Amino acid sequence: MNPETEPVPFTSDDYAARMARVVADALGAGLDGVVVMPGPDLVWLTGYQPTAITERLTMLTLTPGQPPTLLVPILERADAEAAAGAPSVEIVDWTDGTDPYEAASRFVRSHGQFGISDSAWAMHLLGLQERLPETRYRSLSQSLPMMRAVKDADELARLALAGAAADATFYEIVKVQFAGRRETEVAADLARLLREFGHEQVDFTVVGSGPNGANPHHEAGERVIQVGDAVVLDFGGLMHGYGSDTTRTVCVGESTEEQRDVHEIVRNAQQAAFDAVAPGIPCQEIDRVARAVITEAGYGKEFIHRTGHGIGVTTHEPPYMVEGEEQLLRPGMCFSIEPGIYLPGRFGVRIEDIVTVTETGGERFNNSDRMLRLVE
Amino acid sequence: MNPETEPVPFTSDDYAARMARVVADALGAGLDGVVVMPGPDLVWLTGYQPTAITERLTMLTLTPGQPPTLLVPILERADAEAAAGAPSVEIVDWTDGTDPYEAASRFVRSHGQFGISDSAWAMHLLGLQERLPETRYRSLSQSLPMMRAVKDADELARLALAGAAADATFYEIVKVQFAGRRETEVAADLARLLREFGHEQVDFTVVGSGPNGANPHHEAGERVIQVGDAVVLDFGGLMHGYGSDTTRTVCVGESTEEQRDVHEIVRNAQQAAFDAVAPGIPCQEIDRVARAVITEAGYGKEFIHRTGHGIGVTTHEPPYMVEGEEQLLRPGMCFSIEPGIYLPGRFGVRIEDIVTVTETGGERFNNSDRMLRLVE
Repeated sequence: MNPETEPVPFTSDDYAARMARVVADALGAGLDGVVVMPGPDLVWLTGYQPTAITERLTMLTLTPGQPPTLLVPILERADAEAAAGAPSVEIVDWTDGTDPYEAASRFVRSHGQFGISDSAWAMHLLGLQERLPETRYRSLSQSLPMMRAVKDADELARLALAGAAADATFYEIVKVQFAGRRETEVAADLARLLREFGHEQVDFTVVGSGPNGANPHHEAGERVIQVGDAVVLDFGGLMHGYGSDTTRTVCVGESTEEQRDVHEIVRNAQQAAFDAVAPGIPCQEIDRVARAVITEAGYGKEFIHRTGHGIGVTTHEPPYMVEGEEQLLRPGMCFSIEPGIYLPGRFGVRIEDIVTVTETGGERFNNSDRMLRLVE
Repeated sequence: MNPETEPVPFTSDDYAARMARVVADALGAGLDGVVVMPGPDLVWLTGYQPTAITERLTMLTLTPGQPPTLLVPILERADAEAAAGAPSVEIVDWTDGTDPYEAASRFVRSHGQFGISDSAWAMHLLGLQERLPETRYRSLSQSLPMMRAVKDADELARLALAGAAADATFYEIVKVQFAGRRETEVAADLARLLREFGHEQVDFTVVGSGPNGANPHHEAGERVIQVGDAVVLDFGGLMHGYGSDTTRTVCVGESTEEQRDVHEIVRNAQQAAFDAVAPGIPCQEIDRVARAVITEAGYGKEFIHRTGHGIGVTTHEPPYMVEGEEQLLRPGMCFSIEPGIYLPGRFGVRIEDIVTVTETGGERFNNSDRMLRLVE
């Protein structure tokens, strides 16, 4: 794959093939159909993303033996018809002031068990449950958790491009001034760089300096970065519709022995987890391997989150690398490996790459330097 | 209210008062409690907005006779504790790898009927339904539709500030070059201006030129704007946490008699609907008044959406000005009045103001010129 090449857009046939595969998988999982609402499932299945996700019902129904049907508010019909996958679905509309669930009930079977998008609005699920009392629903992450998990060659190419752009962003961000600037200023640099390197959407630009780095969900605040800070940089977004997500931790001007030690433990944990990636390995094993390295080093209680999450048309999706997830890794799955150590009130370290499963092991989509680096 | 004044931040007591009122309203509506998930309800009730809304359960439970409880993923605990309303809630956390619905079941009563945030994820509702089979749920927009609809003086002041900033944006945008530039370029100008005039978040910048204006949900595309185009400009976002949303339609260089006629009909419809605003009037009446003007002028079929929506901490919320909505207007309610006429393949016209209900009638938060204006 040439990273200079613009990917070929997905065609209506590509979307039709995805929908057909989901119908087959649904049958295999004992479902009578799948109900998809706006968000990543709908984008992946049809290429359609409404301008906004609102209280107005938009719903794709996939039922064995029936053509896919996309119900949309009439004022979004033109947008839906312009989606790349539109030729492969039957588009039906409803009008403000009528009951959208009545309209929906014409496409969902009146009895049976259906998968439904995780992020479908509760009000829409309740509307379906009320209108179709003999139907039962399960979230797609429970009933078809691996629906989007195995990526095909075109998807892998996009994820590789996004990863390369994130790496390029890292190599530029370490050249900017850190000491004396606010976290939000460095975060703005990250966002600008991600866009310059081709991202159409920036999802997060975490700059966690000093004690802020010990909060794994800190984004970026007004704290002025100091010489001697460890700084967690975790950034990503979408490029050609597919996600990037990488983390490196740097030190400003100088580093302490403790910072270097903790960084080395995290780096070893991340490497060990990566080395464990192979087809047939349970997801939770990746978490266990990373956690064992950190626990042995005495920081088990300071590794307060799971080791990773899947990535595709979103930057957070199955498969999850977490205790209890027994799904087996399969070639084409893509996910983060991102162990961390968080020392409250002091600093944090996290190192994260996106990894894909190959026929024989794993391959990283992030390949920027993982050694502890000093910035100015 | 001085538009130069920065509003005083809401306090923990403000949030406590809102939660207490919702509990009382819930009892009055026959609910045994309210379950709130991340999004506008949670922001309004606690000031807490997670960095991202994800598959990890975050849930505020309001139960009569019990203190409000906010369940959060452990790695978001620090963020939740930093929210302005945090002192008024009991924060409880759960850890990756444990069952969040089991944790939730300790705070939701095992029997009864509960209101739930409209935009709560379906997977979380299904998790609660499975764990607590004797509980029943209704969307908050059905069970407590007016929960956030009546704004207090501090909220009205914020909405007025946001409206004034949107008006200032309009007066600047009509000075920029339209002819020969892409819609996306004018949209970028709108976004920049909204931010310059104080918005912290831009939600939409619709630039619908010529035939694109006939699609009410068109955002902005690659079309190059032409002399003679009518251009629908619909823009807004959040300022101090409260929304703006205004629409004006302009013509580029020149206008046709038909454009002027259609614009005048829409302007009259908008004015008539505004004149009808008063306490005790049903919401649907506002829609009927606007629609009657347009229907009488022969364009009833070309007005393909409801007349308005509420606004507050979101730019789209109850009350809706739509046929079938029998809620009565009350002082402090705030909503858009935005009739439009859409001529497919040719052009569209829409005029929109945010309006609040006073003790005696209505007051506009948008006061920029509503006459058809020519731009360059």
